[in-house]
Amino acid sequence: MTAGWNKMATKLSIKGIEFSGIAAGIKPQGLDLGLVVFRDPMNVVSVYTRNQVKCAHILYDRTIEKKPVRALVVNSGCANACTGQGGIDDLASLASSLSPLIDIDRKEVLFASTGVIGKRLPLETIRSALPLSVEARSESGLDDFARAIMTTDTYPKVVRRSVKGKKPYTIIGVAKGSGMINPLFATMLAFVFTDFPVSPADIRRSFKTAVKESFERITVDGECSTNDTVLLFTSQKEEDADALPVFEEGLRDVLKDLSMMVVRDGEGATRIAHIIVKGAKKKEWAEKVARRIALSPLTKTAFYGCDPNWGRIIAAAGDTDVPLDPAKIDISIQGKMLAKGGVEIPFDEKKMKKLMDSKEISVVVNLNQGKASFDIFTTDLTYDYVKINASYRT
Amino acid sequence: MTAGWNKMATKLSIKGIEFSGIAAGIKPQGLDLGLVVFRDPMNVVSVYTRNQVKCAHILYDRTIEKKPVRALVVNSGCANACTGQGGIDDLASLASSLSPLIDIDRKEVLFASTGVIGKRLPLETIRSALPLSVEARSESGLDDFARAIMTTDTYPKVVRRSVKGKKPYTIIGVAKGSGMINPLFATMLAFVFTDFPVSPADIRRSFKTAVKESFERITVDGECSTNDTVLLFTSQKEEDADALPVFEEGLRDVLKDLSMMVVRDGEGATRIAHIIVKGAKKKEWAEKVARRIALSPLTKTAFYGCDPNWGRIIAAAGDTDVPLDPAKIDISIQGKMLAKGGVEIPFDEKKMKKLMDSKEISVVVNLNQGKASFDIFTTDLTYDYVKINASYRT
Repeated sequence: MTAGWNKMATKLSIKGIEFSGIAAGIKPQGLDLGLVVFRDPMNVVSVYTRNQVKCAHILYDRTIEKKPVRALVVNSGCANACTGQGGIDDLASLASSLSPLIDIDRKEVLFASTGVIGKRLPLETIRSALPLSVEARSESGLDDFARAIMTTDTYPKVVRRSVKGKKPYTIIGVAKGSGMINPLFATMLAFVFTDFPVSPADIRRSFKTAVKESFERITVDGECSTNDTVLLFTSQKEEDADALPVFEEGLRDVLKDLSMMVVRDGEGATRIAHIIVKGAKKKEWAEKVARRIALSPLTKTAFYGCDPNWGRIIAAAGDTDVPLDPAKIDISIQGKMLAKGGVEIPFDEKKMKKLMDSKEISVVVNLNQGKASFDIFTTDLTYDYVKINASYRT
Repeated sequence: MTAGWNKMATKLSIKGIEFSGIAAGIKPQGLDLGLVVFRDPMNVVSVYTRNQVKCAHILYDRTIEKKPVRALVVNSGCANACTGQGGIDDLASLASSLSPLIDIDRKEVLFASTGVIGKRLPLETIRSALPLSVEARSESGLDDFARAIMTTDTYPKVVRRSVKGKKPYTIIGVAKGSGMINPLFATMLAFVFTDFPVSPADIRRSFKTAVKESFERITVDGECSTNDTVLLFTSQKEEDADALPVFEEGLRDVLKDLSMMVVRDGEGATRIAHIIVKGAKKKEWAEKVARRIALSPLTKTAFYGCDPNWGRIIAAAGDTDVPLDPAKIDISIQGKMLAKGGVEIPFDEKKMKKLMDSKEISVVVNLNQGKASFDIFTTDLTYDYVKINASYRT
């Protein structure tokens, strides 16, 4: 179907959804407090981190999100993770402060946090910033919001899509990365807002599938954060069955674009590699091999150095419990086959280096065992990843 | 028992075991060809990589080592991995060239290789260097041998132990690291030689246990190489039951020391961290958590930056399938408790940084669930790891 998507609109907004992003003083400098206010109650669907250590906002939101919500508060600079019951009580207290300012119930406020683990929120700093945060909100405030939720991100991540035609609906997505991007659930925070009139059951199903095909297909460093959160906010309009396929296409598109923005902005990354494993007997096997290659420090440093070191790729593949025959494996980088049947095909090292000196490297590993495949995007491992993470708190 | 070990002897040798290390021209510069010649046939016990992609020397040696051997040839600069049948035939061909030079059978020669994957050995370069290699050998040649097997190692790794008393026996170990050090089998190459008169069955059992408690307790980057090899060569003397406990103590000691040398010389490492997980319900659970922490790029960069970022440690622990209660976890670094019951105990960040600016950091994670524990040594993740591995082949 032709959805007639408008992907260019940078001013796109959704009526009744207002954003702000202000500098509350949680971080030494920069915007650090984002707010979303919904004129009408919104349903929420969520995917949270699989880490057993869950931050306060996840523990808190799970009790709130079952009913429609009217506001979302997001801070950067402090993860509010490993803060015990105190960290959860802080959120309840902030909800009580915010709700009268926008005339909603305190049980209609969701939270999300990102930043250093183990520190309590600077409660009074945030509380005293709430009035300004509320005042600053507008339907065109998304860019400020996107900036306020950034940590080591180097650019804000916003995707807007609206479908043209007699029924103009919109999907807006915003995310932040950019380290602790984990292979099974790969962003710190992402929020998606839409006015599409789709049933809650359809929304839930579409959302899970779209997350699987986007955020779960990227990795930066294999770390699963305590705070990883993706929330989808949908309005409670009357359902329109015709809208579903269009919505699904749009949602997939928005989440894919957001996740690619996140991986491209992976901590210290100079390029990304698209790892495609095919010829596997089962999709799970292709996935295991692809993830192992995508997480190997040695392949990732080789990508950084534009080194056509296919040996590290086959070694990573072999270091899984997927039964494979090394003598059957073909490996191509940037479309050039470097190894066939597990043995090198002579190639011009200099030319390959040049070919790999690109923003995106494609790596195809054919196991030649079957027909299943899996692909994932990963970053290179660079000096800057080390720099950012060795000095994050100082 | 008091074994009366002599650990200081730097000149220690074993009668009838001769070493050499020469520059054969496999690498652009430096020693690159090591040889060991045994006057009497030696029994061999081995542990090889668990990687499914195994290099030529492993595939070849497994067919040879069942019978006693008389020589070991080790090259650096080329891993001879992923070289197909040709790579294996190369070894057979070299064995045929070497054997007449020292008057042994061609089926009495073992090989080991380390270096770049995917390239064939420079066969004629090695063949023409064999006479010099043979000529250079001596009972005191171990240090040259140790240098010849180095790749990115910054120092040779040799351990010598002899037991004093009326029956003087000796154990000599030599190893090379220093990247691709994998959590389940953690060295590229290590060779141990002894004249202890212990039965083959006892040797095998002692060896497996000692490897488990040494090389399998260190990790640098979680990479499992195609070439990982530990070989123990023992003389075929008459058995002496009294010698066994002494031998076991010595072997454990030698392998532990060698493995610590390997992890301390991990690629780019400025310090090592000793990760101790205790209070687990099962040892396997303690091990899973310890290995996950030891492999986390975020904890490893924090160690590099002397950052007491216990949040990353608890996040890594939570990112396993080991059932744990975050609210029970205590974390100490350098003996200072930073988190109790999953929540931070306020500490002086500057003092902690100073405390962590050490060659070895101790990290204790108490799950407070049971009595099992596990410990492992890991390196920090540094600029130099990236540098070494981004430019390894250039």
